[in-house]
Amino acid sequence: MDRLTLTPLELEYLRSQRLGRLATVDGDGAPQNNPVGFFINEATGQVLIGGFDLAKSRKFRNLNANPNVAFVVDDLASVNPWTPRGIEMRGRAEGLTDAEPPVPGFSRELICITPEWIGSWGLEPGSSYRMQIRRAPRDLPASGGWSRM
Amino acid sequence: MDRLTLTPLELEYLRSQRLGRLATVDGDGAPQNNPVGFFINEATGQVLIGGFDLAKSRKFRNLNANPNVAFVVDDLASVNPWTPRGIEMRGRAEGLTDAEPPVPGFSRELICITPEWIGSWGLEPGSSYRMQIRRAPRDLPASGGWSRM
Repeated sequence: MDRLTLTPLELEYLRSQRLGRLATVDGDGAPQNNPVGFFINEATGQVLIGGFDLAKSRKFRNLNANPNVAFVVDDLASVNPWTPRGIEMRGRAEGLTDAEPPVPGFSRELICITPEWIGSWGLEPGSSYRMQIRRAPRDLPASGGWSRM
Repeated sequence: MDRLTLTPLELEYLRSQRLGRLATVDGDGAPQNNPVGFFINEATGQVLIGGFDLAKSRKFRNLNANPNVAFVVDDLASVNPWTPRGIEMRGRAEGLTDAEPPVPGFSRELICITPEWIGSWGLEPGSSYRMQIRRAPRDLPASGGWSRM
């Protein structure tokens, strides 16, 4: 099955980070950019974003107008020398309204991102921070379990 | 003059941070989300983003199709207790093609963001992290000098 999965280095990096930033776009083409916690489905490479009252959030409502999203997780491995690293995923997100919460207390609304484009940089120690890019051949179904990130 | 300026707490916070994440949108309504260094014009509240070969970047080219952007700077002041803080600015950005570089070596292309909406949270120690929001009454001209952030 043609899946845009995450590499071991990308998974290891995502496990080490607590926040990502999710860009969504409203019906007028204006983006917003929100810090969020996240989970990864390691089998499918999908990203899950939950919350306590997610359905009321504008990022959740934006998905009805425009399902395109960009999610980035990045930091500086070192300031001197300047060593940025991270991963950006672009794709489509679905706003689920009756999902099993990934942690107790979260509401049943979840955002599920299926990456169609993944760029990562600086994840291998000593490597250059030029972005490595992969694209999905086509859309993919959801499956499998979520791991905490 | 009606300006959406930054508060002293917001400026102090922005000075303490090295990276923000810039969401831009392409002509098909798909966002991307890029970690970037930034400068702030403290007088106007505008954000300046430079680089070494910015004109070739997709974020710069996106502005021609869609000038709407969202720029977020945030971190965790503490993990336990969970203490997020940050500032998000939404507005319009102009891609300047012959600007004075803010630091030597940068190219003459710059992205200049004029915020029309500012939300900040958790910047005052001990405060709640509920977002405080301000909106600009109208568009504003650029002016003044840039300070390194």
